[in-house]
Amino acid sequence: MKLYETLAADIASQIAQGVIREGEKIPSVRQTSQHHNLSVSTVIRAFLLLESQGVIESRPQSGYFVRRKPAVQACAGDAAAAPPCAVDLARGATLDASQFVLTTLRSINQGSVPLGSPYPDPASFPWTRLNQYANSMARRAGQLGMTADLPPGNPELIRQIARRHLENGLAVDAGEIIVTTGATEALNLCLQAVAPPGSAIAVETPTYYALLQAIERMRMRVVEIDTDPVHGINLEALERAIVEQGVAACMVMPNFQNPLGFQMSDERKRAMVDLLARHAVPVIENDVYHELYYGDVHPTALKNYDTRGLVLHCNSFSKTLSPANRIGWALPGRYRAQVEKLKFLNTLNTPALPQLAIAEYLKNDGYDYHLRKLRKAYAQNASIMAAAVRRFFPGGTQVTTPMGGYLLWVSLPRGVQALELYARAQERGISVGAGNIFATDDAYQHCIRLNYSYPWSAEVEAAVRTLGLLAGELLANCAPRQKAHL
Amino acid sequence: MKLYETLAADIASQIAQGVIREGEKIPSVRQTSQHHNLSVSTVIRAFLLLESQGVIESRPQSGYFVRRKPAVQACAGDAAAAPPCAVDLARGATLDASQFVLTTLRSINQGSVPLGSPYPDPASFPWTRLNQYANSMARRAGQLGMTADLPPGNPELIRQIARRHLENGLAVDAGEIIVTTGATEALNLCLQAVAPPGSAIAVETPTYYALLQAIERMRMRVVEIDTDPVHGINLEALERAIVEQGVAACMVMPNFQNPLGFQMSDERKRAMVDLLARHAVPVIENDVYHELYYGDVHPTALKNYDTRGLVLHCNSFSKTLSPANRIGWALPGRYRAQVEKLKFLNTLNTPALPQLAIAEYLKNDGYDYHLRKLRKAYAQNASIMAAAVRRFFPGGTQVTTPMGGYLLWVSLPRGVQALELYARAQERGISVGAGNIFATDDAYQHCIRLNYSYPWSAEVEAAVRTLGLLAGELLANCAPRQKAHL
Repeated sequence: MKLYETLAADIASQIAQGVIREGEKIPSVRQTSQHHNLSVSTVIRAFLLLESQGVIESRPQSGYFVRRKPAVQACAGDAAAAPPCAVDLARGATLDASQFVLTTLRSINQGSVPLGSPYPDPASFPWTRLNQYANSMARRAGQLGMTADLPPGNPELIRQIARRHLENGLAVDAGEIIVTTGATEALNLCLQAVAPPGSAIAVETPTYYALLQAIERMRMRVVEIDTDPVHGINLEALERAIVEQGVAACMVMPNFQNPLGFQMSDERKRAMVDLLARHAVPVIENDVYHELYYGDVHPTALKNYDTRGLVLHCNSFSKTLSPANRIGWALPGRYRAQVEKLKFLNTLNTPALPQLAIAEYLKNDGYDYHLRKLRKAYAQNASIMAAAVRRFFPGGTQVTTPMGGYLLWVSLPRGVQALELYARAQERGISVGAGNIFATDDAYQHCIRLNYSYPWSAEVEAAVRTLGLLAGELLANCAPRQKAHL
Repeated sequence: MKLYETLAADIASQIAQGVIREGEKIPSVRQTSQHHNLSVSTVIRAFLLLESQGVIESRPQSGYFVRRKPAVQACAGDAAAAPPCAVDLARGATLDASQFVLTTLRSINQGSVPLGSPYPDPASFPWTRLNQYANSMARRAGQLGMTADLPPGNPELIRQIARRHLENGLAVDAGEIIVTTGATEALNLCLQAVAPPGSAIAVETPTYYALLQAIERMRMRVVEIDTDPVHGINLEALERAIVEQGVAACMVMPNFQNPLGFQMSDERKRAMVDLLARHAVPVIENDVYHELYYGDVHPTALKNYDTRGLVLHCNSFSKTLSPANRIGWALPGRYRAQVEKLKFLNTLNTPALPQLAIAEYLKNDGYDYHLRKLRKAYAQNASIMAAAVRRFFPGGTQVTTPMGGYLLWVSLPRGVQALELYARAQERGISVGAGNIFATDDAYQHCIRLNYSYPWSAEVEAAVRTLGLLAGELLANCAPRQKAHL
């Protein structure tokens, strides 16, 4: 049993004995760390484990509390004879990544400076117009019933998506499009369509955590491929993995990758599609930031170079027209029939009103104007945020140069634990994305991801400065210990 | 190769050779049947196979057409070296059930008399008020962003669901509720939470086809348990299956089961929960018709008798407030943490606006009045429809006596093929649910399911009469052949 597991068991036992009761606050990370003489990192891992077991719950800026329980008991906390849970999505032995991501997301809307958010600033969405369209469609759609929105989705929305792709230089057959509940559903369905459980799936590293979780959920195996923060995935390494490890499919993000922000060149995109075609390996392309480019022209997708139907393109309106609508889509190539069936089985159809509202928005003018504003603002913020990090963070810190999107990847000097920085920042009302969730191992435990979609302000600048100071403190604390171990 | 597979290959080859070209209509079921001297049933199976391969597509009341294809090719139709599709949801060797269900559903909204629909009459929903609430919430919710609706879901909607359960006699902890994209998502997530691939899952027979498809999709094994059309699942048979076949979980519908319409007694519900608890087997309860009872009181759920957190209750507003909203929920008992994680991985969150609109609708008065109207209408229609079937269908036909919901199960004399009846009825603009999709084998190939949620009218009555006449013809045709085989 690891240290953090022992600590978690101790705390659970205290709760079971009534030492700490339902609804009561448990001692803070810092108190527990001092009391047990354990590192903050160990305590945080113990707390996250207890949270994923349903024993405690976090309340942002308040700490952790013993969860109130009904007659029902959490799976992991129940010692009596009971069937095991089929799903345990804990990554490795150190962090329940999906629980941690959910905890991070929940902390965002509670008054903290949301540097850890994966979502764009909600104020950036054209709410007024979208709501006008939702209103007018709600009146008209009353008697539509259900069947008009059956998979593949609302026909008018599908037409608008095809038109938009064409304007962006990708001629797609509207008959290939399948509307989904956000890109998340599209990615899950495409993955299940292309590979059976047990398959090896290649991803960039670092990569968007939801891909890692989707692969684990499908009981497949993650193969992380070396990825350059400027040029993208290493194609030689990818080919080796295909040949040597029998990779069955890839999941990548060639444009404005989350978290690195690079844009693969057209040559490298074409080379990647050719390479995969030679080996008959399908690739799931996540292109949700495609409209948020900083260059002069819309980027191509892997799909542009696909002649064999092996590229499954996943996309959504979540980054430009609000994630709350949950409208995404897939262009699944030769896997279309399978993905459509899986969509039908997974959620039947996609809610009607958001589909209709977005279709109506796209039909009318304004999307391009809206996007031009976003691109300009995000490109500016990217430079300002990177400059602030360089100014406030300890020497040796590296930042990416995103070519689109709104996410900055910050690599701190090794020894700084992002989880500790996360916890200390939380105490000060600042959220950050800890690098730990972007890989299956500890490769990025010294990295953080920052969101720069919010207007630059004194408050945001102060938050970045605070983060830099905290990082400096952590570095100072850990440096001697690190050296002692040498 | 079976007859229908040979026929499908012949037709595919004609299309490949350009004998029939893209967008062109292929010869009708009847023409093909006569030309090849094959039964209508064989031809239909060949067409359904080709449809699931993406080679042809059906256009209701027009027939089958060669599908237009982009550069992209359908998986099954591609002979070149290409990775296999991971998912092939064809049931047995005779029918791609999920494709057939989708085809049936698509045919509903196209002017046919929708006796095959699983959905309630769209005119039965309180559209005007729901839309008013959607409108007012759309204006207010503008700046909400995304995080308020993260799993477990919108807090106000969760409060309203908990309140409604309490009014219906089930005290639930609001903290247990997880909002989902319809009950479909809830059922899928609960199934994945309780059992790993390869597990044996017990279901009633006949059962709601989506359960069979969910089990297949998760690579689990269906174990069909004898089910009485009045009393429900046979508990002795269920216990035997648990002991002898190692059943890992159950998926059942104790109230107004789809398709049989029975309501299990309180005693049998309690006995079932006790039985499962003794064997520590979790049960996923699908209770989507719970508000549509014909008796004096709201029925109990298995969840009412659960003391060990082994009942995963799935529900939705799709039957009472429109499926187009896609708002369902789960009460996953001890599996709550797992189901919440899976929800997060599957679709992130549930769309905000439908959640807000339904929460607002529930907060204000009118739901009970709306439900009283529905219950009265459905109870009346149940009697009228059953009487019409008895009057118009051939002797030996049996009908159920539903105790809630809006679905009637009709068992025709053996020898009548429901798929043939389906095809002939389609030609006359009438949709029916073919019994074949409610089991993994041919046990119900002589049964059909009829929807009686639509107001009784001369048109509906004429449709039932036509069905009865067609059934009589099929019986007359098949009877001699059946005898010849004896």
